[in-house]
Amino acid sequence: MKTFEIGRARPVNSVVTSESIVRISRIEVDPAQLPEYLALVTECGRESMTKEPGVYMMYSMQEKAHPERITILEIYADRAAYEHHVQTPHFQKYKQETMKMVRQLDLLDQNPLVPEMRMK
Amino acid sequence: MKTFEIGRARPVNSVVTSESIVRISRIEVDPAQLPEYLALVTECGRESMTKEPGVYMMYSMQEKAHPERITILEIYADRAAYEHHVQTPHFQKYKQETMKMVRQLDLLDQNPLVPEMRMK
Repeated sequence: MKTFEIGRARPVNSVVTSESIVRISRIEVDPAQLPEYLALVTECGRESMTKEPGVYMMYSMQEKAHPERITILEIYADRAAYEHHVQTPHFQKYKQETMKMVRQLDLLDQNPLVPEMRMK
Repeated sequence: MKTFEIGRARPVNSVVTSESIVRISRIEVDPAQLPEYLALVTECGRESMTKEPGVYMMYSMQEKAHPERITILEIYADRAAYEHHVQTPHFQKYKQETMKMVRQLDLLDQNPLVPEMRMK
């Protein structure tokens, strides 16, 4: 069975540079609204990866021991790619519809120690 | 210039399944020993990705606002791949030599929301 690989559908020419934005977003969600939140964050991640060449990664994870804690590894080619991302309809939908679900949001910008590393 | 892409050097057949281990390791390092720590964690990440087919990702990052805070996104094919990893000489070297540099270590196992997503 061939698994569809988001991010492998287009030619690979993405390179993380010192201009790139590598960010960990840590989000705590109202547990009562978790299923709705998960659907929205998943949809936004898929659309961002599919439609935006400058979004290199948007890997969302749910902590097993605390399912209301979400972490997203976000990588943007550069600031222009990030500025474009936050204007897209799919991000605006996510932002508006999740606003009342999110209890805490921490945006933690990172320096990748091995910028050329790629997920296998 | 062709950038060497760790994880693209071998044929791609890695698939994240429910047997995989997706983990965020959060590490706080003694600031006085940070340069030595960064060299060791970088070396271990490169060797793991190069030498271990079952290590799908070992993406280490340093928080810009708090450089002593390190986050590693680790993805192992399955538990056997993880058990193999912790026995390798490169991991054992990292573990032994960084033991006195690490002030806090949190291992946070995750459920990936879009398991088939790959970094571009």
